[in-house]
Amino acid sequence: MTTRSPQGDAQDIMLFDLIIIGGGPAGITAGIYAARKNLKTLLIAKDFFGLAGTATRVENWPGDFGVSGMALMQKLEKHLRALPIEIKCTRSDLVQACTRSDLVQAFCVGVSGGDEFTARAVIVATGAAPRALNVPGEKELAGRGVSYCATCDGPFFKDKAVFVVGGGNSGFSTALEMAKFAKKVYLVDKQEKLAADPVLQIQARENKKIEILVNTILLGIEGEKKVQAIIYKNLKTGKTFQQPMDGVFAQIGAAPNTDFLGGLLALNEKNEIKIDPSTGAASLPGVFAAGDCTDAPYKQMIVAAGAGAVAALSAYKYLGKDPSAIASG
Amino acid sequence: MTTRSPQGDAQDIMLFDLIIIGGGPAGITAGIYAARKNLKTLLIAKDFFGLAGTATRVENWPGDFGVSGMALMQKLEKHLRALPIEIKCTRSDLVQACTRSDLVQAFCVGVSGGDEFTARAVIVATGAAPRALNVPGEKELAGRGVSYCATCDGPFFKDKAVFVVGGGNSGFSTALEMAKFAKKVYLVDKQEKLAADPVLQIQARENKKIEILVNTILLGIEGEKKVQAIIYKNLKTGKTFQQPMDGVFAQIGAAPNTDFLGGLLALNEKNEIKIDPSTGAASLPGVFAAGDCTDAPYKQMIVAAGAGAVAALSAYKYLGKDPSAIASG
Repeated sequence: MTTRSPQGDAQDIMLFDLIIIGGGPAGITAGIYAARKNLKTLLIAKDFFGLAGTATRVENWPGDFGVSGMALMQKLEKHLRALPIEIKCTRSDLVQACTRSDLVQAFCVGVSGGDEFTARAVIVATGAAPRALNVPGEKELAGRGVSYCATCDGPFFKDKAVFVVGGGNSGFSTALEMAKFAKKVYLVDKQEKLAADPVLQIQARENKKIEILVNTILLGIEGEKKVQAIIYKNLKTGKTFQQPMDGVFAQIGAAPNTDFLGGLLALNEKNEIKIDPSTGAASLPGVFAAGDCTDAPYKQMIVAAGAGAVAALSAYKYLGKDPSAIASG
Repeated sequence: MTTRSPQGDAQDIMLFDLIIIGGGPAGITAGIYAARKNLKTLLIAKDFFGLAGTATRVENWPGDFGVSGMALMQKLEKHLRALPIEIKCTRSDLVQACTRSDLVQAFCVGVSGGDEFTARAVIVATGAAPRALNVPGEKELAGRGVSYCATCDGPFFKDKAVFVVGGGNSGFSTALEMAKFAKKVYLVDKQEKLAADPVLQIQARENKKIEILVNTILLGIEGEKKVQAIIYKNLKTGKTFQQPMDGVFAQIGAAPNTDFLGGLLALNEKNEIKIDPSTGAASLPGVFAAGDCTDAPYKQMIVAAGAGAVAALSAYKYLGKDPSAIASG
């Protein structure tokens, strides 16, 4: 990372109206709205995949029943790329308030490699990342049988036995997807009552390949070079088991990608960005946020997309380019 | 309308978990989410068209760049109809709180024809209707040259002259659409600075068929059996003109469809339902609202869809069927 001057440098820093950070449903929708408002916009994204892209089958994006997360994200990316917006595919590693001589306030966004971009407003839409299981063997065997994405890795487990941790929607969707390939799928949750939508629970219970273990926790993953066995415990009986296993899928929720903000914005106890839900405004004027990185209570693609539109329209207003105060007609 | 007993009648009233009123993006998305949560749901809609369906070309529904409002609404309706949800196509004309002997609280929704339906929770997603111009001749000539929807009526004006009132996005979209058919299109607004997105304004200014008149108001519409002339005034010069004209399109915004609520919910000064923007909760516990009938600041299809999902998930929680308080993993 290069050293950044707090004053910026008019020669080598381009000033955007708006920088959007994130390429999921929230970031892309914000980009679509910003482009239509003719804002000079830069969208910085690691990729256009994110958590949404890992969904095996999306049944609740209105109008696209049963589409894969990947196909849906490709549609969204295509829409974005049809519009006048600058796109940079890289990881953001720092955001800070900075000043420029000709401006009251601006924001600098640093990216990996050391480049820095400046804008008068920022939308943070960095989403969330799968939560780690934090058990022995997980890190060592990641990508060698330990996975966070059935869509990505499912076909590698043909006729194998896999252990899916997490009884929410993503755990059940993963178990159902893996049952297409694997010969045996265990779905485990530490609770007795499972959080997944009833329709998914019914489908899983009707699938003979899937065995649901409640009150159960994973203690460790074993194997040399690849997953070979797991150790798990039944919390009710207190019994511990070691069992041969080929794969472990972690589906225990997600953590917001907000570390790179480095204290710039107020976060809640889950490290989610606190926003005004009507406008998407974060704690610092000029910064807005949308989607799974915020404290919005429901983490859903369609909700994130709506929030992305709201953030972009609020940024447009903040930038003083919104003439809508003038009633028409 | 039949007389309604405040006690309801266990014999002929079916109790739903949830009644959703409205068939636009908010209502349909709420329906999709409610069905996936296995809520016993009734969706009551006049149609699946509404204001969204009148859009000539939708460029900001992520993933469907350039789709017509009608085609998009048909996709959404098809998705909804693929799910286990009861649908009744009729107009709601009354909502009231009512009690049933076996329940603490329920809501009765009356529909035109006199039927009444009961549910433990309600989502109001009735959208908004085009605002009338309120000038002489408008009512008399509605459907005879006076229109609120270019998509519906555009082709009737081939080689004619039309007058579009309203300089916002819908006014400009209408003018651009009408320029495909008409020989001349006037776009008028009482303000000098127009509210439409810059991209639309640029397209209209480049179109030789379109003439933009600012600081201008429509005073009246004249004609026998059909529109034949209009009278308009330039507010800056004070001059009044009478001019032959074949059509008038009103695009001066929309008013929320909330009259049928009859005082059940708190509304703001625009008659929009006041909601908690995080949850969609209206002023009465058990009633939620989403979309253009609410006080949400941005009236957009994708925002309404996100709000519909939020309202359904909040209703699910309210109904005590949400196990998500129990952490999984």
